[in-house]
Amino acid sequence: MQMNNYIELINKKLDEFIKIEYPQEIFKSMKYTVTLPGKRLRPIMCLETCKMLGGEIENAIPTACAVEMLHAQTLIHDDLPCMDNDDYRRGKLTNHKVFGEAMAVLAGDALLTYAPQIITKYSENLSSSVMIRVLNEYFQFAGARGVIAGQVVDINSEGKFLDKDNKIINKDEAEKVLEYLHIHKTSDLFQLAMRTGAIIAGADDDKLSAVTEFAKTFGLAFQIADDILDEISTFEQMGKTMGKDKEEGKLTYVSLYGLEESKCKLTCLLSKCHDIMDKQNMSSDIFNEIIENILQRAGSNK
Amino acid sequence: MQMNNYIELINKKLDEFIKIEYPQEIFKSMKYTVTLPGKRLRPIMCLETCKMLGGEIENAIPTACAVEMLHAQTLIHDDLPCMDNDDYRRGKLTNHKVFGEAMAVLAGDALLTYAPQIITKYSENLSSSVMIRVLNEYFQFAGARGVIAGQVVDINSEGKFLDKDNKIINKDEAEKVLEYLHIHKTSDLFQLAMRTGAIIAGADDDKLSAVTEFAKTFGLAFQIADDILDEISTFEQMGKTMGKDKEEGKLTYVSLYGLEESKCKLTCLLSKCHDIMDKQNMSSDIFNEIIENILQRAGSNK
Repeated sequence: MQMNNYIELINKKLDEFIKIEYPQEIFKSMKYTVTLPGKRLRPIMCLETCKMLGGEIENAIPTACAVEMLHAQTLIHDDLPCMDNDDYRRGKLTNHKVFGEAMAVLAGDALLTYAPQIITKYSENLSSSVMIRVLNEYFQFAGARGVIAGQVVDINSEGKFLDKDNKIINKDEAEKVLEYLHIHKTSDLFQLAMRTGAIIAGADDDKLSAVTEFAKTFGLAFQIADDILDEISTFEQMGKTMGKDKEEGKLTYVSLYGLEESKCKLTCLLSKCHDIMDKQNMSSDIFNEIIENILQRAGSNK
Repeated sequence: MQMNNYIELINKKLDEFIKIEYPQEIFKSMKYTVTLPGKRLRPIMCLETCKMLGGEIENAIPTACAVEMLHAQTLIHDDLPCMDNDDYRRGKLTNHKVFGEAMAVLAGDALLTYAPQIITKYSENLSSSVMIRVLNEYFQFAGARGVIAGQVVDINSEGKFLDKDNKIINKDEAEKVLEYLHIHKTSDLFQLAMRTGAIIAGADDDKLSAVTEFAKTFGLAFQIADDILDEISTFEQMGKTMGKDKEEGKLTYVSLYGLEESKCKLTCLLSKCHDIMDKQNMSSDIFNEIIENILQRAGSNK
């Protein structure tokens, strides 16, 4: 399947999976952020991993959509005034700007259980034991040992590694913390997507380890690209407020390593992604395209 | 088992099930609210339903604790400044007052997936298909069709049914809305507790319907008692700010029916609870004790 077909399929399913029931406000608020235009990278990577490892895409659709719903959940709560306090996301107003803060808190809460319910409700072809394995992956990566751990360390590290002139304090420690927080904040959702895709395909332990390693590495590369783009892009290009990291003295790859070294790291990590694939004789045009895309947007020296 | 033994067992298990891992703040914040002293009514009702219907208490412990964790989750988020903005809960500072707003949002989020993970991790004796049934109950009652639906309607009804002198406007509609919101805000957690207890015990459909009906009815009675106590108690007796409902012009059973009629309704609903039990030949000293307790605290005319 081509990238566009994947995106179309996922958008159609996301729309189907969230119907506007009573009380409408909550379902509208959930659906608003879940269906914001986006690259659908995480669900695509779930479906493509499943296909690449010999599984049926069909069987992974509910799980792929659940991962995208979880992703939307993290965006809604991250954007709240008490967190990152962002007004725009993907070029549109953030959830709490449209529905109010209380509804945004509740919409995020609701998505956290709505997403796994989609898995149990629509995955007719999964055995109960595979379904429980998939749910456990979801619980693990969505929770206090997953994306939330990253968010907590992110909050706690604010102002800790930069002095008032935005100079790095304690670089070794900063490197460790930055890696930890992005393994969780960013890589965990990719790990969830790819690991569940692999489990649904019935992958063996070697393949499962390989996709885990790929997702971890890819997630770090993705975050470095994001930090580079935050530095060099405009609101129009990105659909969210840019340069905010720098302004707020936030620790990023660019503030830690500078723009050039960040680009090197990005290239290096993405090349490692190819190696991981090759070593396990896994190949996928879609993953190649995704990697190439990131390299072109953030890695080039134009 | 006696009430005290139940409480002891549940407190021990709650403490065991939440270990303080890295990053510590999030686990401390989760554990803080989960382990606040409380009556443990919901987990007790889960365990007692399981026992009453012939199941092993042991098999229901992880689920009972998951229900209590979900209950704590709803308290943490309901108390947030953007929701009810409460500073005290069970005589202690609310979660965001101790850990800050961002951590309280994240602790609530984390509990939503931590709770079902406890079910899958520690329910060794449940078959995969029973486990999935239990998880589906959890997803349903925790989500946008469960407690959250109640919270949404509660928020939307504020100021809608009371004029500036606290007189009821549109009483018929107000009655319907009040019942809907408490079926969800309050009864749903009791339904979750009792239905999962029954499912784990292997109850048939009749018994499952009966405990559902019991939980719905009991939940409404419980809420009426809460409204009565809000009207007549002090902070010292309840451990949270009292008389707040009235002050904020919030629709309650007492504002809708007055104190005396509310007490009548309470007695009537609790007597219906007994009938539901009798009709299915179910009997439990613990449930009798719980009902008696509520009657004595809120139903008497002393």
